[in-house]
Amino acid sequence: MARRVAYLGPPGTFTEQAVRQHNPQADLQPFPSIPGVALAVASGIAEEGVVPIENSLEGSVTDTLDILIRQAGLFIRRELVLPIEHCLLVMPNTTTSDIQVIYSHPQALGQCREFLERCFPKAQLVASLSTAAAVGDMKESQLPSAAIAPHRAAQLNSVEVLARGIQDNSSNVTRFVVLSDSDSPPTGTDKTSLCFSFAQDKPGLLHTVLGEFARRDINLAKVESRPSKQSLGDYIFLIDIHGHREDPDVKEAIEALRSQSSMLKIFGSYPRWAE
Amino acid sequence: MARRVAYLGPPGTFTEQAVRQHNPQADLQPFPSIPGVALAVASGIAEEGVVPIENSLEGSVTDTLDILIRQAGLFIRRELVLPIEHCLLVMPNTTTSDIQVIYSHPQALGQCREFLERCFPKAQLVASLSTAAAVGDMKESQLPSAAIAPHRAAQLNSVEVLARGIQDNSSNVTRFVVLSDSDSPPTGTDKTSLCFSFAQDKPGLLHTVLGEFARRDINLAKVESRPSKQSLGDYIFLIDIHGHREDPDVKEAIEALRSQSSMLKIFGSYPRWAE
Repeated sequence: MARRVAYLGPPGTFTEQAVRQHNPQADLQPFPSIPGVALAVASGIAEEGVVPIENSLEGSVTDTLDILIRQAGLFIRRELVLPIEHCLLVMPNTTTSDIQVIYSHPQALGQCREFLERCFPKAQLVASLSTAAAVGDMKESQLPSAAIAPHRAAQLNSVEVLARGIQDNSSNVTRFVVLSDSDSPPTGTDKTSLCFSFAQDKPGLLHTVLGEFARRDINLAKVESRPSKQSLGDYIFLIDIHGHREDPDVKEAIEALRSQSSMLKIFGSYPRWAE
Repeated sequence: MARRVAYLGPPGTFTEQAVRQHNPQADLQPFPSIPGVALAVASGIAEEGVVPIENSLEGSVTDTLDILIRQAGLFIRRELVLPIEHCLLVMPNTTTSDIQVIYSHPQALGQCREFLERCFPKAQLVASLSTAAAVGDMKESQLPSAAIAPHRAAQLNSVEVLARGIQDNSSNVTRFVVLSDSDSPPTGTDKTSLCFSFAQDKPGLLHTVLGEFARRDINLAKVESRPSKQSLGDYIFLIDIHGHREDPDVKEAIEALRSQSSMLKIFGSYPRWAE
């Protein structure tokens, strides 16, 4: 039976592309929000869930970080890094010079700013809830309009691709994670993601615990902080390190960190994406 | 002459409240975006600009961080911390049981989730571009509707306040910063914000530089990372430390950090907000 994989929908989003690359045979189940995907996995509706976690231009997807911090029984099993290629979609027989309105998610509009200013300086830019929703907004528009969305959204909606690769920065990539009820066994080139916090704010505490990794030559791939939601200035730190949580040196460093923190949660160990 | 202060508008937003608290005599100039406020200050249209930088539930306002990283000639002169109180606004003579649609910015809808589920389980929640825009969306709605917005938006729009303080978490506060062409002189209880990055990714580099502060007993109030926009895994670190950039120990630590980083930018030193 095909594996049930929940993802941030609707069909036609970049996350759907990531799921198809992860598992071409999957039984795809779109959910309207990142917490929805997480709950689908935690409750068993789906065996795996795919959500974006970080974009090279926009930074972290905070909904995904907050889910990993707060939702029990959810682990990262895999990461995938996909290039993001934005396209300009129009209804059949639309003339470029007629376009008066361009719809997309604000992040996508922002990522195509130069293209829009040079090619459509007079068009009105209108925010949609997602790149997939932008295509629907375009179809319902009374004025000649266009939508910025992934290439696949054109096929799904029977509309035309007027331009491809219209993003300003060609190094626009998004990292996705596959969530499941367990993480992955060691492969030799792994990554481990975890979060921790301190009961009290003391000068140098973060420095001390990062030293547990530095001393063992464990590469710190990422450091991030999220609000604890208790009070301003009270943070949860999220780190990605190279190595698997079962590697002896990583295990030792994490145990040393655990003894100095008030909370520590391992999101999982999984193979590092090979660029 | 009244000081010209740009802020993230329109009138009725929480940022307008912050400007009024910062300078009740200011000549208020609303701008539609955070980059717009920054440019107004950098170009001299306004002498100061006020933007949100961090919320205790949602985390950093990444537009503000990116502006501080990239815009030259812009400094933080002051910080203000304001409690965020959401209200439910309706058109005069609306009956609670009639409400079918509730408009607000997605962050505000998220911050009032419990209230909405308990009191309006059947209402449709619709995203608006800002809490101020939500009031306009409500006024134009064909169906009986409500908007979640600040109290002041009710006065400005001649609508009624049906409920106050409807946010789930009473510790919901937002930190705002006042941007200007210079920062503040030392007061004895200051904070300094800066960013830096490394030319190469080496295990322990972040640990080493944080050691410059730990060794001098300088409290690290915040650590954050933002994408460099070059490639995934290439970060700019943002830190807030206690002390003024002219304090001898802070100055020494920053110089030591500068010698180890490929880029370092000081956003400014300013008085710490007294809770």
